[in-house]
Amino acid sequence: MKTAFIIAVGNELLSGQRVDTNSSWIQNQLLTLGIPVLGGCLVPDETNRIVAALEQACELADVVILTGGLGPTDDDLTRDALAEFLDKSLELRQDLLQEIDRYFSRRGMTMAPTNLVQAYLPTGTVPIDNTRGTAPGIHAEKDGKLFFCLPGVPAEMKTMVTDYICPILAADADRGVILIGKVRCFGLGESVIAEKLGDLMKRGRNPQINSTPHEGDIVLHIIAAAADRPTAENWVARDRDLICRLLGEAVYGFDEQTLPEAVGSELRRQGLKLALAESCTGGLLAKLITDVPGSSDYFLGGWVTYSNEAKVRDLGVSPQVLEQYGAVSEPVVRAMAETAAAKTGAEVTAAISGIAGPEGGTEEKPTGLVHIGLFFKGQTEAQAFRFSPTGRLSVRRRAAMTALNWIRLKLKI
Amino acid sequence: MKTAFIIAVGNELLSGQRVDTNSSWIQNQLLTLGIPVLGGCLVPDETNRIVAALEQACELADVVILTGGLGPTDDDLTRDALAEFLDKSLELRQDLLQEIDRYFSRRGMTMAPTNLVQAYLPTGTVPIDNTRGTAPGIHAEKDGKLFFCLPGVPAEMKTMVTDYICPILAADADRGVILIGKVRCFGLGESVIAEKLGDLMKRGRNPQINSTPHEGDIVLHIIAAAADRPTAENWVARDRDLICRLLGEAVYGFDEQTLPEAVGSELRRQGLKLALAESCTGGLLAKLITDVPGSSDYFLGGWVTYSNEAKVRDLGVSPQVLEQYGAVSEPVVRAMAETAAAKTGAEVTAAISGIAGPEGGTEEKPTGLVHIGLFFKGQTEAQAFRFSPTGRLSVRRRAAMTALNWIRLKLKI
Repeated sequence: MKTAFIIAVGNELLSGQRVDTNSSWIQNQLLTLGIPVLGGCLVPDETNRIVAALEQACELADVVILTGGLGPTDDDLTRDALAEFLDKSLELRQDLLQEIDRYFSRRGMTMAPTNLVQAYLPTGTVPIDNTRGTAPGIHAEKDGKLFFCLPGVPAEMKTMVTDYICPILAADADRGVILIGKVRCFGLGESVIAEKLGDLMKRGRNPQINSTPHEGDIVLHIIAAAADRPTAENWVARDRDLICRLLGEAVYGFDEQTLPEAVGSELRRQGLKLALAESCTGGLLAKLITDVPGSSDYFLGGWVTYSNEAKVRDLGVSPQVLEQYGAVSEPVVRAMAETAAAKTGAEVTAAISGIAGPEGGTEEKPTGLVHIGLFFKGQTEAQAFRFSPTGRLSVRRRAAMTALNWIRLKLKI
Repeated sequence: MKTAFIIAVGNELLSGQRVDTNSSWIQNQLLTLGIPVLGGCLVPDETNRIVAALEQACELADVVILTGGLGPTDDDLTRDALAEFLDKSLELRQDLLQEIDRYFSRRGMTMAPTNLVQAYLPTGTVPIDNTRGTAPGIHAEKDGKLFFCLPGVPAEMKTMVTDYICPILAADADRGVILIGKVRCFGLGESVIAEKLGDLMKRGRNPQINSTPHEGDIVLHIIAAAADRPTAENWVARDRDLICRLLGEAVYGFDEQTLPEAVGSELRRQGLKLALAESCTGGLLAKLITDVPGSSDYFLGGWVTYSNEAKVRDLGVSPQVLEQYGAVSEPVVRAMAETAAAKTGAEVTAAISGIAGPEGGTEEKPTGLVHIGLFFKGQTEAQAFRFSPTGRLSVRRRAAMTALNWIRLKLKI
């Protein structure tokens, strides 16, 4: 089985300016080809450090993918470092020069002299076509190992990985295959899940199963390494069924399906319409719903009633109720959910009102207290939640996701 | 000047399951103490690889910060690796055991036997108090170099860096200081900014100035390395003024101030109220506005009119206009913005209607076409934008940010 190492080049990756998201994306692509990534590193824009990283990488792995440092400015040193590592000189490639020139002229611009450097490659290496920018990638080989140098710009990098590198590695792959299946849950803590799954999550088991939590949302990864794809698929399917049986209704979806997608496709299937009435989440739940393409099939719209006046004017909350119970209360979210349903005709509506913080909490109604009202086919329920006050964004996100999860449970997904 | 290296441990960081955001956050903290980070690496949960990373790190730098691998499960191997690297054995620390026990009993739980391992430390090392979880951090020294091993959970890690590591490194710092100032812009491309700033962005200049783009938002980092803090502050302030003069109204804020914060604090200062009417952005702009604590001071609320019915019912768009011009049109966003103002009494309202894609585009109205209407103190304007159709989320984000930026320009920030 081939293995890989990923090098991310750039001063901005070491000075807190930019998080390296490229490596994680590449890891996913390689894993689906059965190529595990053994390690990665962050390296500044310095020739000797890039050379050292290339040396370290090819000691560990068979395929080395490097991102960054191919731009036109004088701190882009990946070309020089690769040439030094390969012990080759850089040569001007007329075909690349014309390519870059065409890139600019198609956009009605002239090539800046600084871009000339992007037409240089170490002798004996192969350019990788850049359909989305000016810097070609570089494909090199040394001592039977493969090296791919790609731009750091995610869109350019991704196209090269998908269109150029993956086909090469797929053709070249050994029989071994790694498959990853995902099971998505909401509403159980990570430790409870670990307890329920027991030996399934034991280290060294194949498939390996581990969990990644994110504010209530937990994704279980089933990583199967097998001799061939059918076997790996069988193992993943078998473990997926096992997990579903053990976790019951906590499971809401598989693979890349998010909670908003799961709820959305079930609303569509059942022919139901959704409307929202948000206070403390301020549009976040509507945003999550409408992130999903095609959400206009089932989402009618929503109100962001961030002031008491808006709650009274648009959602029929009575000023007396606001006065008596406060905006964060059960009668208020009930009224919001019911009026949203009455106005829109939606069969499903959710209303959220809470204290997101950091200010505004009191002893009686602390930061993290959120009331959620749910109207479902003529019935309204309401429930209070106490989220840990770990930050405004986290309280808001948990509130929105909890409302969404409640809708899901009502839809019996 | 002291230097640092950051090691991120965890299989999930190499299998595309989780992006390492800890390293970038730590880099920022260290830089403000004048400690540049020279490199970083991603290492799997394997003792020998962690040991090798520690060896490599302390060859390069004086301070090594490692995150991850301190959990209670049997793939948490940082404790073992550190002991091996230091050539010490692991000893059970009764004080830590009691601490972990208390952590659980305060929550009405009993400590699981698996957590026992977290009370073990290599002899001669110092535990770092974990106020947010069970795993203590570890502070070790070897050959005059400092090693800090921290949990991978961001909240736990951040508290340890802020409360424990930063004070130690600050007390220990040489005279040298690195200061980072940020200038935030919107509306100019990265290459236009580079051209306008010219030699200011030259490599090797001190302060070093570079740019990080994110969907229209561009942050310029001014990184000043000086002998003392006043000098560094002077340099940053001087360059900030220079940049402001060169970029003019493209600059909307400094340091950590986001565009929603800049707009929010100006609305508050000018005593103006804001309301929103969103279609294609589906609540995203309201979400961005209400991400800011205290936004209820100036934000009255909004409508997410995702269906034509909602536009007619709630925002006074006439069915004839919808029929004649379509939902993505100038008369529709004008009506939305004006009705939102009339209903709420807000002095400022924005309305957004567009084709976010991937479906729904036509030759005449392609994906990426967004109409924005702006009501400002009694006057309504509307404008059409063509964002490149690089994805639904990106079109939505650019539309929301462009509306926000238009409000900013009206407020003359």
